[in-house]
Amino acid sequence: MDILKANDYDLAEEDAAGFSPHLSELSRPVIKRVRALKKLQLESLQVETQFYQKVYELEKQFQPLFDAVNAKRRAIVAGEHEPTDEEADTPLLHGVTQETLEKIEQDAPVEGGEPSKGIPSFWYNVLNSVTHTADMIKECDQPILQYLIDITSESHENTPGFTLSFHFAKNPYFTDSVLQKHYQLQIGLSEDDPFDYDGPTVVKSKSFGINWNTGKDVTTKIIKTKKKKGPSAGKFVTKTVKNESFFNFFENVEQALDDDLEKEEEEKIRDDFETGQIIRDQVVSRAVLFFTGEATDDMDDFDDEEDDEDDEDGEDDNDGIHDDSDLSDGGGHETVRLGGAGGETIRVFKR
Amino acid sequence: MDILKANDYDLAEEDAAGFSPHLSELSRPVIKRVRALKKLQLESLQVETQFYQKVYELEKQFQPLFDAVNAKRRAIVAGEHEPTDEEADTPLLHGVTQETLEKIEQDAPVEGGEPSKGIPSFWYNVLNSVTHTADMIKECDQPILQYLIDITSESHENTPGFTLSFHFAKNPYFTDSVLQKHYQLQIGLSEDDPFDYDGPTVVKSKSFGINWNTGKDVTTKIIKTKKKKGPSAGKFVTKTVKNESFFNFFENVEQALDDDLEKEEEEKIRDDFETGQIIRDQVVSRAVLFFTGEATDDMDDFDDEEDDEDDEDGEDDNDGIHDDSDLSDGGGHETVRLGGAGGETIRVFKR
Repeated sequence: MDILKANDYDLAEEDAAGFSPHLSELSRPVIKRVRALKKLQLESLQVETQFYQKVYELEKQFQPLFDAVNAKRRAIVAGEHEPTDEEADTPLLHGVTQETLEKIEQDAPVEGGEPSKGIPSFWYNVLNSVTHTADMIKECDQPILQYLIDITSESHENTPGFTLSFHFAKNPYFTDSVLQKHYQLQIGLSEDDPFDYDGPTVVKSKSFGINWNTGKDVTTKIIKTKKKKGPSAGKFVTKTVKNESFFNFFENVEQALDDDLEKEEEEKIRDDFETGQIIRDQVVSRAVLFFTGEATDDMDDFDDEEDDEDDEDGEDDNDGIHDDSDLSDGGGHETVRLGGAGGETIRVFKR
Repeated sequence: MDILKANDYDLAEEDAAGFSPHLSELSRPVIKRVRALKKLQLESLQVETQFYQKVYELEKQFQPLFDAVNAKRRAIVAGEHEPTDEEADTPLLHGVTQETLEKIEQDAPVEGGEPSKGIPSFWYNVLNSVTHTADMIKECDQPILQYLIDITSESHENTPGFTLSFHFAKNPYFTDSVLQKHYQLQIGLSEDDPFDYDGPTVVKSKSFGINWNTGKDVTTKIIKTKKKKGPSAGKFVTKTVKNESFFNFFENVEQALDDDLEKEEEEKIRDDFETGQIIRDQVVSRAVLFFTGEATDDMDDFDDEEDDEDDEDGEDDNDGIHDDSDLSDGGGHETVRLGGAGGETIRVFKR
């Protein structure tokens, strides 16, 4: 029997969800005890925020170690350093036979004319192998992303957060050599809903726009419309409107979620936060595995069922935009990925 | 053009997946550079394991702080401590109006006869509010789980891992006061597939069975079968077979994933690892929020779409087995949960 219902409570919308039916069967002394547990829960969550603060500090301590490895990566990708045999003594692919590896190398195209420098289109191919970022890349972005030579992530020193930096070679599109995006984290409990705490959250993002060369801005397009009213009715006028592009990610705005947001705007902001998170957690730290197709992003787990059939043939008929979902480890788990040797990946620190 | 395909490679099954079509267009010098990046990736993952080792140590340091709060919780749940007014000055539910809270308390049933002790059925209701564990609870388990007075989790001191302890009041079903389950973690890279590293993984679980009182073991049942062959053909014989029960979780076995496992067995073991993880990460650390229905487990995100319609009426017509999926925060994100004040939850430490 649901007493709340039976008594015909006039519940505000926010009251309608958020509690279990068995609550209405609790006697007053028991309710008091549950309220005491709620207070203890708050205490426990406070401890948790201290824990996450320490993890964030630990992350800052480790940053230089990751940076050192990633700087070597950049040098090779950008053609600033040619690896020695010893530096390149790891097989191209993991989990394939020796014969396959040899055949791939034997049949690799011979370089004609100028020898190549670095790894052309490396970052373009990486971003294009991660479902979330691949969806952001439009045709107009492809030539520009060929100039992307590094993506780095840096934890902020004082206020918690991180900055993503996209490093570009000199190019005809814009004058910037680095495009940046800042994310601000909140490690403490939220005042509005402390009980929803589940670790640090992105609460704000900020970027500063791009200094496009004249006529090169792919984030806008000019359209012709026919005037319907007024003195110039019937005449064509041109109008500059937004264009779909990966580079909208760097639009000059500061965004935060807010209760008053329209659904569509909220969706957009969440998407932006998620992009930042994926680039930081997966793209920056696992780039070459996305390049070779050995890594899958978490998004793939969701797309699996839909995409499985399409990808059976493994063909890449999409002008370089391929889909790796058939390489996914399958399964619909969250935060859980198969370890190669078996086992479920867990966060030791997630309490 | 897919050169691998064009040359009609005889790929072993494991070779068929795991690389991107654009690989076959790389020249030999570029392949060498990618191989150098693979070696750097390994270096970076090694740094990551050191980071996770530190996080695990941090977690052990924090353990006593969490334990202290959870010991107070146990005392209240088990009726060993009656909270004072000050200890119970937190509202029963978050995000509902003051009027609703007052009405709930006003209309709470008056206790008749013996006053209650503690919070009856607390842990039963918690386990029953978490999708994954609720699915494990069968009718035969319900009376036994009423005796469950605490669930604790402890990180191991030397080899990485954790133990879940289910504490029971004296009961007519078994003589054990604590049922335990051990999980062993691997923090380092796996030898078989180092590139699949994504943090510590559960690699083994172990439990020790239950000392059931005679005739009380719900994990087995006796069935009658008719002999078909042999001298006693046509006669009925009794046979003890496994019965579906939550308590199969404590079966006396040690399990690890292994390449030779049958699909079904593998599924079972993964499920067991996942259960341990959910109990540790969610149940132990957020119990009261599951009890009140304010928390949702990650599994809910997956069930959302299916369940949304069924649960509109919010009725609990299932003998105490309710479904909280309508309280879910919705959305199909992975590892991403809405913070109440907006924002996307992220793991600061996930690299």
